[in-house]
This record gives sequence, C-alpha cells and structure tokens, in this order.
Amino acid sequence: MTTGVRRRMGVEERRQQLIGVALELFSRRSPDDVSIDEIASAAGISRPLVYHYFPGKLSLYEAALKRASEDLAGRFAEPHEGPLGARLLRVMRRFFDFVDDHGPGFSALMRGGPAVGSSTTNALIDSVRQAAYDQILSHLRVEDPPARLELVVRSWISLAESTALIWLDGRRIPRAELEKQLVHDFGALAAVSAAHDEEMGTLLRRAFKDEPGDGPFGDLIARLVNLAS
Amino acid sequence: MTTGVRRRMGVEERRQQLIGVALELFSRRSPDDVSIDEIASAAGISRPLVYHYFPGKLSLYEAALKRASEDLAGRFAEPHEGPLGARLLRVMRRFFDFVDDHGPGFSALMRGGPAVGSSTTNALIDSVRQAAYDQILSHLRVEDPPARLELVVRSWISLAESTALIWLDGRRIPRAELEKQLVHDFGALAAVSAAHDEEMGTLLRRAFKDEPGDGPFGDLIARLVNLAS
Repeated sequence: MTTGVRRRMGVEERRQQLIGVALELFSRRSPDDVSIDEIASAAGISRPLVYHYFPGKLSLYEAALKRASEDLAGRFAEPHEGPLGARLLRVMRRFFDFVDDHGPGFSALMRGGPAVGSSTTNALIDSVRQAAYDQILSHLRVEDPPARLELVVRSWISLAESTALIWLDGRRIPRAELEKQLVHDFGALAAVSAAHDEEMGTLLRRAFKDEPGDGPFGDLIARLVNLAS
Repeated sequence: MTTGVRRRMGVEERRQQLIGVALELFSRRSPDDVSIDEIASAAGISRPLVYHYFPGKLSLYEAALKRASEDLAGRFAEPHEGPLGARLLRVMRRFFDFVDDHGPGFSALMRGGPAVGSSTTNALIDSVRQAAYDQILSHLRVEDPPARLELVVRSWISLAESTALIWLDGRRIPRAELEKQLVHDFGALAAVSAAHDEEMGTLLRRAFKDEPGDGPFGDLIARLVNLAS
C-alpha cells in the first residue's frame, strides 16, 4: 500500500535507488535488453530525471557494477579459523549465491556486455579478482608468493569464473556439486603445481597439513583413491 | 635490396599486406598503442590509402584478429594417433608458440583491448574456443558430451587462456613447464570430475585406458605418488 505521498529523495539516495532498480532488472535480463525507460518506470520517475542522476546508460551500468563488485568482494571475507577446505567451500557457496542472484548481469558482463572494454568496468572486474586473490593468499598465510603460487591461485580464480558462467548456461549441474568441485579443483591444481616444483610442494604441504580426513580436501583424496581402485 | 620499382598491389593483396603489418606491430606493442600512421608507414603507403582498404582502425583490427584466430584454431588440429596426453602436449606447444609470437596483441585482446565488446571480436574469440572444444571432444571420441564433460573441457580451455596470460606477464616460469602442467591440469580436472560422477568416471577411463606410463598422464600419476609419499 502506498500513501500517495511521494517524498523527495536526496541526490545520493536517488542514485542508490536507481542502482538497486537497475541491478534488480539485470538479475532477470541482460543489461543490453534493459532500457533507461524501463529503469525509469520501475523507479517511478521520468526518463529525463534518470539522466539527471546518470548522464548515460554506461554510467548507470558502471555504478551498478561497482555496487555488485563490492558486494561480491565482501562475500570472499572468511574468518581465519578451521580447515582451509571448509573455508573455501563456504566462500564458494556465497559466490554461487551471488552468481545465482545476478545471473544475466553476471553473464553479460563476463561474456562481453555493453560496458565491457570500458576502463572503469575492467578495473572493477580486476578489483574483484584481486580481492579473491588477496583473500586466498591470506588464508594460505603467504605474503610474498612465488610465481607458481600466483599462477595456481589466479588461474583457479578464472576457472571458478568460467565454471559459474557455464553453470548459468542451462544450470544442468547442481550448484552444490560445482561448489565442492571447485574446492577440489583448487586442491588438484595445487597438487599438480607441487608435483612440478619443490618449493610449491613445501609451501602447500605446510598450508594443508591440518586438513581433516572428513573435510573437502580429505574427501577429494578418498574419492581419487576410490576412483583409482 | 629493392628494385625501386613499386608494383601495384590488388585490393585483396593490399588488405592482406596491411593485416600482416598490423599483426607484426601488435606482436611487439599493444594494439592500443599502434596508430594507423605507423601501420601506413610500415606498409610504405599513405594514411588515407590505409583508410581506403579499411574504413577505420577497428575494421583493420578485426581483420587482423580474424587472421590470427584462424591461425590459432589451425594449430589445434592434431592427428588422431598415439596417446592422448602426448597429443595434447604437442598442441600446448603450438599454443604457446602462438602466444609467444603474438604477446601484446593476445594480452590486449583477452584483457579487454580496443575492439573488445564488439560483436565481431567476441564471435572470433568464441570461434577459437569452440575449435579447441571440438578438437578435444573428437580426440576423446565423444560426440554427445554430458554436461559435466562439457564443463571440464570448456573450463580447462579458460584455464589455458589465463595461464598463458599470466605467463606473458613477466614470463617468470619456463613455458615448457607450463605446457606440460596444462596437460596435467587437464588430467587433474578430469579426475576430479570423475571422482564426483560415475558417468564421467566410465567415460574418462575409456578415453585414457591406453595412456602409457611414460606419457604425460603417466608422468602426472608418478609425480603425484611421489608427492604423496
């Protein structure tokens, strides 16, 4: 029920409202297919007024992406307590919650949507990747990563992105399975790197030495032993 | 030695020359930093004449990308003979040859260069990924892949892309190591998927049943056993 009284919003409040409306629309349809008219209509204001707050669709899109980026990066924060595999699994659940909530917007962005190639957009995407990278290193308790560890972590982050994109395209695999599989993929890629390089072996043995047999990494080893037999 | 006689080139011949000149320049500096003036100068023609053959930098960039895409996709072709691991390793060598030859252009494109977001550019990038995907399925002798196999193959392709990009950023790891590691990563990601799903287990056991102990996949298992001990 509305009261019929329309309160005047402040500039920042109105901007935040429009960003929220845009993100809600982008969660159901690709930003390419959402017009400023629709955003204005959903916000209950006129099209020219939208342009008063955002000079063009790109600037509204970038503002929406900025809020979504901060939201996603915030979900990577995880207490430094308990086994690493279980921590990573919790983060993967929150990552898939985000992907689930922002499906079409996430796909459009990562596959090359309207704002891709803008330096603002690229910087925002990179900032999320960097947040994920920093979090993982902090949980591994590594401050000055060797090149091979950086490669494992950064390439796994891109694997997680592409896994999420492929999942969104039809959702043919239960997301809970993919969340766990990505944790296992991290362990597997780390193991391959450790199998190639002594320093990585030492580093990862130290990081994973307290993993319990019933955690995600213990589960991976049990599954692989079972597969091999 | 030049003869001093400048032969007139036909339209298509001139276009091909300009594409070659552009790719050569993009192999040393990012396309963002290469001007039409430089391309004209390197080709020995005037700037207006470049615009006669390509209406703008984007169209020349797209034509160069098209040639590079066909070149790369062609390198994925591999005879269906011998162990799968060895085949994949040969393809990885040719892939890194390409990445090595086209460094700045490859980076700019994959990180969001001038033409990124153009539908032509995205379609060309997708066509190369699809060529890689089709090749891998044909070598696995799978015509109608289950969703989990598609996920493993497509997500590994993105892992290979990001590994190459990270390598280009400083070349701190010998490329031969990464070529082999990517083959091992494929085996590891496939094993994780097989450890989660019976159908994948059956499919991959069949595909890999003839792998020799001294091939890349046998080498991976030996390395992992050594790591675990």
